[in-house]
Amino acid sequence: MPISRKVHGYISQSSWIRKMFEEGNLLKKQYGAGNVFDFSLGNPSVEPPVEFKETLRTIAGEDIPGIHGYMSNAGYLETREAIAASVSKEHGISLNADHVIVTCGAAGALNVICKVFLEPGDEVLIPTPCFLEYRFYVDNANGVATFVKTKADFSLDLNAIRDALTEKTKIFLINSPNNPTGKVYDEASIRGLAELLEERSRAYGRDIYLVSDEPYRDIVYDGITVPSLLKAYRNSMIATSYSKSLSLAGERIGYLAVNPGISDFEEVMSGLILYNRTLGFVNAPALMQRVIAKIQGVKINVGEYGRKRELLCDGLSSIGYEFSRPDGSFYLFPRTPIKDDIEFVRALQKRRILTVPGSGFGGPGYFRIAFCVDDATIINSMGGFGETFKEYR
Amino acid sequence: MPISRKVHGYISQSSWIRKMFEEGNLLKKQYGAGNVFDFSLGNPSVEPPVEFKETLRTIAGEDIPGIHGYMSNAGYLETREAIAASVSKEHGISLNADHVIVTCGAAGALNVICKVFLEPGDEVLIPTPCFLEYRFYVDNANGVATFVKTKADFSLDLNAIRDALTEKTKIFLINSPNNPTGKVYDEASIRGLAELLEERSRAYGRDIYLVSDEPYRDIVYDGITVPSLLKAYRNSMIATSYSKSLSLAGERIGYLAVNPGISDFEEVMSGLILYNRTLGFVNAPALMQRVIAKIQGVKINVGEYGRKRELLCDGLSSIGYEFSRPDGSFYLFPRTPIKDDIEFVRALQKRRILTVPGSGFGGPGYFRIAFCVDDATIINSMGGFGETFKEYR
Repeated sequence: MPISRKVHGYISQSSWIRKMFEEGNLLKKQYGAGNVFDFSLGNPSVEPPVEFKETLRTIAGEDIPGIHGYMSNAGYLETREAIAASVSKEHGISLNADHVIVTCGAAGALNVICKVFLEPGDEVLIPTPCFLEYRFYVDNANGVATFVKTKADFSLDLNAIRDALTEKTKIFLINSPNNPTGKVYDEASIRGLAELLEERSRAYGRDIYLVSDEPYRDIVYDGITVPSLLKAYRNSMIATSYSKSLSLAGERIGYLAVNPGISDFEEVMSGLILYNRTLGFVNAPALMQRVIAKIQGVKINVGEYGRKRELLCDGLSSIGYEFSRPDGSFYLFPRTPIKDDIEFVRALQKRRILTVPGSGFGGPGYFRIAFCVDDATIINSMGGFGETFKEYR
Repeated sequence: MPISRKVHGYISQSSWIRKMFEEGNLLKKQYGAGNVFDFSLGNPSVEPPVEFKETLRTIAGEDIPGIHGYMSNAGYLETREAIAASVSKEHGISLNADHVIVTCGAAGALNVICKVFLEPGDEVLIPTPCFLEYRFYVDNANGVATFVKTKADFSLDLNAIRDALTEKTKIFLINSPNNPTGKVYDEASIRGLAELLEERSRAYGRDIYLVSDEPYRDIVYDGITVPSLLKAYRNSMIATSYSKSLSLAGERIGYLAVNPGISDFEEVMSGLILYNRTLGFVNAPALMQRVIAKIQGVKINVGEYGRKRELLCDGLSSIGYEFSRPDGSFYLFPRTPIKDDIEFVRALQKRRILTVPGSGFGGPGYFRIAFCVDDATIINSMGGFGETFKEYR
């Protein structure tokens, strides 16, 4: 075998998702893209803000020597300062440039964190349903991903978490607003989690780190705010990106912010900066770093996703689908009318509706609808959602 | 310890280089940047071509929905097609978009290759002197970097390579034009290497892969051309970037091109695309992908580096330094007048000349001068180079 056995195994495992993706492409060819209702991918549909476009144009027009060359592996000082100021304001905790590394998105930041913190066999505990790509990030660093179920309403189950923490747990990884459920973990549960992690760190005699993957932080509805993990827990880090808040998913720009109170701060930062380089990222893309520095605080029009959420929730609710209305993100995670979520997703596919089975997120019996799509896609899919529901009811 | 023992060890190991870097910064503060001759970093000094700047401006000014979002993890089809056409022309071998993945630079591509091909403990054999960062890339994939010396003129030593190949060697990694020596391995030695790898693959009953890290391919002098490894050997890949040929080191844009004749082509590509995503790169930066697609074949003015090479070589030669004139790249790798290259580099530093000891490249007894600097830096450093030479002669 030319490639590693592990990679070979992962390709086989992921092949049924690829198969569905390919079948979706076939459907689009057969019926035309406009007649296929593709809710499968979390690719932002709302355009980047006008401030982004104008700043990009201005910076692309400047002719400053060396601006496309290497900079410090942690990123431009001005970018790190700008991010630190935003994080300080938003989280009510004082950071400066020394606490920030600009990264190739949140996925880059998470890979760096796993590589730096995990000894082989160390565990990363993750509440489910979740973005299962995390398994790769942990495995890349020779760690082990472990999972703990959330409650029926997708909120954190502190008793279950207490049972799932072990002497090998090095990181607790949280994603709120959550992909795929849209849940925002509330202030009380975050406080409870922080107390639990502190207590368990003392009991095991080694620190458990809290990592917050929060690219959907700005995409929230009904006036909800996302509690700060940095403020709640000392040994904490944020790994996030502008992929969703500015609709820049393809540009690979995000950051890693480290709690100033983290244990052995200097060594932690040295390790993170070293591995941001040596994992092959080297630095976050230079041009986007300069753009981001100038538009801190600017966000896409979240109201557009809010309108899509209403359209989708109202439509599915009137058909009879059961779900929790998402607090944030652009995902809805309804219960499937039958137990087998893969069968149900295949039935939707027959009506040219593409979604992802909950099993792909550690949440069988549900399915994910990414509503970052045209309003028309939502409206025109309702017939098919209705027919499929009746068929299985 | 909060971070992994291995990372802790690497931070300690790399600390003396960081110390020199910090000392250099102190020198600049003390004497002014203009009075410090910094030859330490391989950061392109020649500006990106005007075609790049114009294309960037045009593309930044366009307002096409979705262009900052996710695309296929392998990159835009139009970008992969454009790269495939260039590679086909340059290497005299027929590639199409299916053979190309757009990557976050060559460092990204190399990390992906190591992760996909190496079983734990598999060896990557690398001729020295070389860019030692390769050790990290191999280690990230749980492989083992092994090294083989080149000849006195830095050309490939096929007998030594034959002795260094083992049953565990999975990859032979080549970098030509070479960092730090500037050597281009000639056609005959590449042919000999290919025959040797084929013979050893048969003897061991498993394929040895040839990987070419060639970001300096376009930066060559005296009409030299760089032989194609794709053409010479079936189980081969290119990992490269536009960092040097277009002076875009900070933008993290490059590609991975796979020989169409490679064993198990489909599985290899699936693995590479999967890990381009899951190592956290996800995809190469979208905007730069679109720029690159439009300016294939455009290069920086290599004549500028040629002029700097002459200035530096003539100056150092008349002082009495011994070196091979580089065939390509923007590095010169002279012998140190004393055995201890670290001591000599420290002596240069006292005259405010910053270089890197050959020991940092697996080449003790030499030192690296990165001549991607202003002409004035070269000219004004000659006094210090002369004094230091006399002191140690």
